[in-house]
Amino acid sequence: MTVTIDSDRLWNRHMELARFGATAGGGVWRLALDGSDLEAHRALADIALGLGFKLFLDDVGNLFMRREGLDPLLPPVVSGSHCDSQPNGGRFDGIFGVLAALEALQSIQQSGVQTRHPLECVVWNNEEGSRFAPGCMGSAVYSGVMPLEQALATIGDDGVPLRDCVRALRELLPEAEHRPLGTPFAALIEAHIEQGPELEEGGITLGVVTGMQGNLRLMVDVTGREDHSGTTPRRRRKDAFFSAVTIVQALREALHDEKDVLRFTVGRFSISPNAWSVVPGRASFAIDLRHPDQAELERCRAIVIETVARHAAPCEATVTQKSSAIPVSFEGPVRDAIQRAAQLRQISHRSIYSGAGHDSRYFPGLCPTGMLFIPCKDGISHNEAEYASPSDIAAGAQIVADVMLELAS
Amino acid sequence: MTVTIDSDRLWNRHMELARFGATAGGGVWRLALDGSDLEAHRALADIALGLGFKLFLDDVGNLFMRREGLDPLLPPVVSGSHCDSQPNGGRFDGIFGVLAALEALQSIQQSGVQTRHPLECVVWNNEEGSRFAPGCMGSAVYSGVMPLEQALATIGDDGVPLRDCVRALRELLPEAEHRPLGTPFAALIEAHIEQGPELEEGGITLGVVTGMQGNLRLMVDVTGREDHSGTTPRRRRKDAFFSAVTIVQALREALHDEKDVLRFTVGRFSISPNAWSVVPGRASFAIDLRHPDQAELERCRAIVIETVARHAAPCEATVTQKSSAIPVSFEGPVRDAIQRAAQLRQISHRSIYSGAGHDSRYFPGLCPTGMLFIPCKDGISHNEAEYASPSDIAAGAQIVADVMLELAS
Repeated sequence: MTVTIDSDRLWNRHMELARFGATAGGGVWRLALDGSDLEAHRALADIALGLGFKLFLDDVGNLFMRREGLDPLLPPVVSGSHCDSQPNGGRFDGIFGVLAALEALQSIQQSGVQTRHPLECVVWNNEEGSRFAPGCMGSAVYSGVMPLEQALATIGDDGVPLRDCVRALRELLPEAEHRPLGTPFAALIEAHIEQGPELEEGGITLGVVTGMQGNLRLMVDVTGREDHSGTTPRRRRKDAFFSAVTIVQALREALHDEKDVLRFTVGRFSISPNAWSVVPGRASFAIDLRHPDQAELERCRAIVIETVARHAAPCEATVTQKSSAIPVSFEGPVRDAIQRAAQLRQISHRSIYSGAGHDSRYFPGLCPTGMLFIPCKDGISHNEAEYASPSDIAAGAQIVADVMLELAS
Repeated sequence: MTVTIDSDRLWNRHMELARFGATAGGGVWRLALDGSDLEAHRALADIALGLGFKLFLDDVGNLFMRREGLDPLLPPVVSGSHCDSQPNGGRFDGIFGVLAALEALQSIQQSGVQTRHPLECVVWNNEEGSRFAPGCMGSAVYSGVMPLEQALATIGDDGVPLRDCVRALRELLPEAEHRPLGTPFAALIEAHIEQGPELEEGGITLGVVTGMQGNLRLMVDVTGREDHSGTTPRRRRKDAFFSAVTIVQALREALHDEKDVLRFTVGRFSISPNAWSVVPGRASFAIDLRHPDQAELERCRAIVIETVARHAAPCEATVTQKSSAIPVSFEGPVRDAIQRAAQLRQISHRSIYSGAGHDSRYFPGLCPTGMLFIPCKDGISHNEAEYASPSDIAAGAQIVADVMLELAS
């Protein structure tokens, strides 16, 4: 018993969703629960309601669209991802996983096939974490990794607490019933663009994800002294910017990984008071470290702390840990089902390790969990130029449909 | 014929003015023609009107408070400075020169002494340049160095054009008559805190300023490519932040001046999109260079251009000149009168070279011009901790009064 997804409908839906937060450069700027992201949620809900699905919303703003099963008491087979983007992000990161799941549900619905388990498409709230840090917040709260109160109290870059945004989402979706956090899943499958170059370079359509690297986020705050830039001699200055630059250069050397496995990024940087005539008195920057081996991340943490301490002079500096996620591996029935479906459909596939973090990272201990990747052009994502082809998108969604059908039968 | 200024009144007035834009840390945040700066202008105007002085406002927002002379057709003897501050600036930079001049006019007025020339206290608009770049804008336009239209079209950091702010100032001061730009002065004297450590270290009360160093401002823009920080290997990245850091470190070496005469500051720095999970695609920073020798500044400019070009890879980078001011020297009757007055008053004094730029830089070619400095604690300014003592402030204002009286007789 198989169902064929509608690839044109699926592609067109990607283009329609890309209008919410569209940028002049062809990308998307749709931060978690901002105006555009709320519109995107409403548009997805309207599609689901039009198909006769039910809506559920939990206390942290995760949205579930449900096709009922023959036995409504069984836990649902769930698939989905997120619809928020990075600033100047792309049209496929996140939303592909949501639309693939929704297309799977729609195709199954229109084929008339009944499943034992209910089927659900999930839209996790705030995966990107660029408005509300850290990311993967909705899934972290749902899975019990982060306390609800901590998430709701998070203040966005624009000064708005997440709590207010979740309330706005609830008011926008009055049709949604309440979903208790942690309600069990029968299985979870997430489809995503690779966000790296491997599938494209290998000419492969589908990546069967074997695991996800760990992530460590540290903030460095450097304190010097504000001084007049025209009158203060170098020997009297405590220039927080120059100390920060020295620290960053030292970190680049100390964290250099010849094998290029460690990912070391400084994505946020600011100085104060940020004026032409004032020697900067403060500098702050964010360190993002990723590696498949938790021990290696622990070693990097120690290196950062030691390097910052050694190179801060004549200023002072502190290191604060903002978040940490251990590496995970995907094994078991979902991964097996993905592999089987790809073989049956004769879609080229290979195992792949995930460099990016995704919401599914929190679920291997709770339910059978798996992920699949499709290629993205030149490996570029978190960028307006991000692109995935209609045929790869269709292939990925077809596998989602096949796997959901199998697991829900 | 001498006049004695009122040192208590002068100190109290400093404390009163410090309330406009007062920060929690004891400093002042009063950017050019923001709400606090407008309030400060109104407070100064009220003092002047209360003393029977006339107000004049020119088209770029410079305010003149005038005590009439016996011959109103003679050009005025002018003294003053500015009342805007840096972000998190101090309570004395700029405003001391304004209040010293106003105190001089008030003391002379209340003593009943008549002068041949009119006496004026000037408040130059936007000296600091932190809201509207570059600084010394009001004096540059008045002296003909910058076109009026260019200044008025300048957009503030907050998106507001200077034109709108000047209009607001005009509406706030309906009593002010119109002053044509470039109206001649008989002489100009500006009092200011030193903003450096030399007077304090030498135990000297008064600095007779001999000249002012030149200033060169360059902007560097680095363009790389935004990428996902979890998936993109180092070898595939074009990290604009890391290239900027490499450039800054190379500049620190290339511009190192063992004699510590050159002032090299990076006071502004930003990256885009400034998100945890995105390799920065763009970085921009501001280079402020100061030196007493114009040839040395030209040499530095060449070094910057060459260093940026050599170290930008794998990104691309451009250098744009934002402003340039040549070094100036103060010679002639004003400087002589300052020296004479200090001798007569038995105030300890010495010659001093100005590290900071001031509005008076544009006037040596137009009228006799001079400056005097008083010590500031630990040489710290552009900082909330900036401090000048009541007795030094009184000494400086007394010399301003003496010099204005002598030059206007």
